[in-house]
Amino acid sequence: MREIKIAILGMGTVGGGIYKLIEQESASIMHNEHIKLVVKKTLALDYSIDVPEKIKARDIDEIVNDSEIEIVAEVMGGVHPAKEFEMKCLHAGKTVVSANKDMISQNWPDLEEAAKKGGGGLYFEAAVGGGIPILRALYDSMQANTIDQVYGIVNGTTNYILTKMSGDGLDFRDALKEAQALGYAEANPTSDVEGYDARYKLSILASLAFHVRVPVEEIYCEGITGVTKLDIEIANELGYVVKLLAIGKKTANGGIEARVHPTMLKKDHALASIKGSFNAIFINGSAVGEMMWYGKGAGDLPTASALVSDMLYAANVEKHRHATFENKYDAGLAQINDNWRTKYYMRANVLDAPGVLAKIAGIFAKYDVSIESVLQRPGEGAFAPLILVTHEADEKDLRGAVDAIGEIPEVEARPAIIRVEEQEG
Amino acid sequence: MREIKIAILGMGTVGGGIYKLIEQESASIMHNEHIKLVVKKTLALDYSIDVPEKIKARDIDEIVNDSEIEIVAEVMGGVHPAKEFEMKCLHAGKTVVSANKDMISQNWPDLEEAAKKGGGGLYFEAAVGGGIPILRALYDSMQANTIDQVYGIVNGTTNYILTKMSGDGLDFRDALKEAQALGYAEANPTSDVEGYDARYKLSILASLAFHVRVPVEEIYCEGITGVTKLDIEIANELGYVVKLLAIGKKTANGGIEARVHPTMLKKDHALASIKGSFNAIFINGSAVGEMMWYGKGAGDLPTASALVSDMLYAANVEKHRHATFENKYDAGLAQINDNWRTKYYMRANVLDAPGVLAKIAGIFAKYDVSIESVLQRPGEGAFAPLILVTHEADEKDLRGAVDAIGEIPEVEARPAIIRVEEQEG
Repeated sequence: MREIKIAILGMGTVGGGIYKLIEQESASIMHNEHIKLVVKKTLALDYSIDVPEKIKARDIDEIVNDSEIEIVAEVMGGVHPAKEFEMKCLHAGKTVVSANKDMISQNWPDLEEAAKKGGGGLYFEAAVGGGIPILRALYDSMQANTIDQVYGIVNGTTNYILTKMSGDGLDFRDALKEAQALGYAEANPTSDVEGYDARYKLSILASLAFHVRVPVEEIYCEGITGVTKLDIEIANELGYVVKLLAIGKKTANGGIEARVHPTMLKKDHALASIKGSFNAIFINGSAVGEMMWYGKGAGDLPTASALVSDMLYAANVEKHRHATFENKYDAGLAQINDNWRTKYYMRANVLDAPGVLAKIAGIFAKYDVSIESVLQRPGEGAFAPLILVTHEADEKDLRGAVDAIGEIPEVEARPAIIRVEEQEG
Repeated sequence: MREIKIAILGMGTVGGGIYKLIEQESASIMHNEHIKLVVKKTLALDYSIDVPEKIKARDIDEIVNDSEIEIVAEVMGGVHPAKEFEMKCLHAGKTVVSANKDMISQNWPDLEEAAKKGGGGLYFEAAVGGGIPILRALYDSMQANTIDQVYGIVNGTTNYILTKMSGDGLDFRDALKEAQALGYAEANPTSDVEGYDARYKLSILASLAFHVRVPVEEIYCEGITGVTKLDIEIANELGYVVKLLAIGKKTANGGIEARVHPTMLKKDHALASIKGSFNAIFINGSAVGEMMWYGKGAGDLPTASALVSDMLYAANVEKHRHATFENKYDAGLAQINDNWRTKYYMRANVLDAPGVLAKIAGIFAKYDVSIESVLQRPGEGAFAPLILVTHEADEKDLRGAVDAIGEIPEVEARPAIIRVEEQEG
């Protein structure tokens, strides 16, 4: 039996989850792994659960300088001081396990370099998909595959909101309020509803899947705040559901598409049935074909499951792996392709007057976007919603067309668009 | 760059898949893993693909005695001589990777002991779920969880047949013929359609998930040959689909349920939508909650994906893990609980005469099984199908009742039953 001493930075929901989980599963971990995990120190401004006073550290140095502590879990969230704390621990040779998707996705090369110098490991299974063990699978189980797609639902808050909008006919604001009341959305929901959280996760996922670094700021990002009840109703009529997807794809010319946006998916796609706060991630591998992981993307114990797993995995590793961002897990920066092709759904509020559809159709034709179907809905007052679904078109052409349509006097504002994925899955 | 020499035993579909995959992904494996896999020897009676004459071994000893060969892939299938060949390789200190579910599930302790003595590793990700990396996830990603359920669709042949029966209204024989014509079922389909293949896989899955050995012969096993077109039609009317499930559950008293049988599942259960030759496996963990893996359960490249992954994983391991069947991954033999509780669907062919339903209902009451609903269907001739769905009942009570009902003169034969799982998922 080996005893491994750890420290936890941040004792909110997830930090408390780690503490509880280590207590709860201690006997079975000792039995199965022959390892006893001992929380020697915690560092936090607020504690979500009671811990003995004597393990509360005064500052980060008390942990960094404690040579008995082998592994540090960083679950404070935010970039500062989380980055400085992780860097100190890594430089001191400790292994760091983290759930901090925003900090890691933006500082991965620095952290990895510090880990390499210090000799400890850097693990962050919990940063993507909560309890879903997809990062380890990409490292340890998909090595024989060239992966050309990784996509999925990686934000439970927005999935909960969209599920509610769809199931109960709520509009965005009411569904968000319900999610906040139930603890599925934070008081400040920006990072979730604007897609930033999904973007951090996609940066990590796509980098690992494609062995090339896909920086956060290169990922196109659009949240769900513009999705209306009407969009979801019409999607339903057309045989689709609306999901916030994080999508990474290799393109024919060696580029990478990386984008987060609301997406219409066919109702029989496996992702269409992922409800509430669950996450699900697909890959397409050259040997394995289509694979999907499904599970809880957040919450204290699911996230702690990934963090404690990282600790036990790290404890059994003789020599930690380090992404160098030169040759391994990275062939340099990705060449981002921001002119992808999909079908598009467009909703415009137009004057109910003759000739408007002809004008709009003319603009689409000018931009080389062909129209698959048109729907008109009764409006209130002079304007009425006009809905169009296009055939596959280039993103840039579509945006050009939509900008131009927004300029017509008979159109109330720039039309809303939702991308449509026809892919089976 | 490390060069690792391997041998392949069996050059059928899967052996050919390994050979092709190593060729196809060689550059990316070298780039990402810094390992070059070289197939130095093959041993087979039949070759599904062309390989250079000079690598064809005459006998197993040529491979066992070749000290350059570090890893041997055994994909011959069958118990003999596969077991003897694996044992020789393991005793010689080589690592063995295998897809041989029947042999491994029945001889795991012997093989593990040989591996431990020889110092090589024993890996068999490919034996369960084809390309789905669930065994590695149980070892390396679920350590912080006590798992109380593992269940799923682990046989693609029967899932293909049931999907066809359901989608195209075929009966079992015709769906089987179609599966055989398309290569989804073997000329001799017994192992698949009788549930034996699923039973081997459940033995491995449940043993790993529960850290206790669940021997093949202790697992209740019933295939799909008795499932009729009518059963599937009625299931559909009642809101269910029929799937062959492999189910492992911990029971309250410390026992284990382990069973393979056709199962009616609610249409909105995630497993209900798993179509054709795909596999999907659920677990329920104390921390992670519900998790599912979905992917291709068979085929040359998906299976080779798991085998080559095992090779690369093993190549990076300093000291292989060995289940001892004493303390690690095994607390001794499982205490099997064969008196589980579920709901039941029963179909009897009964004489269309007054009083028959009363007799049947009386027998159910005597055996303490209560009836939820009754359906009668028009028959041909004097007999007509009577369908009953029970509330939850003990398996033994249900069997007692069904045996007794089979004895009534007005009932044509022992009624058919299908277990019903109401669980969400």
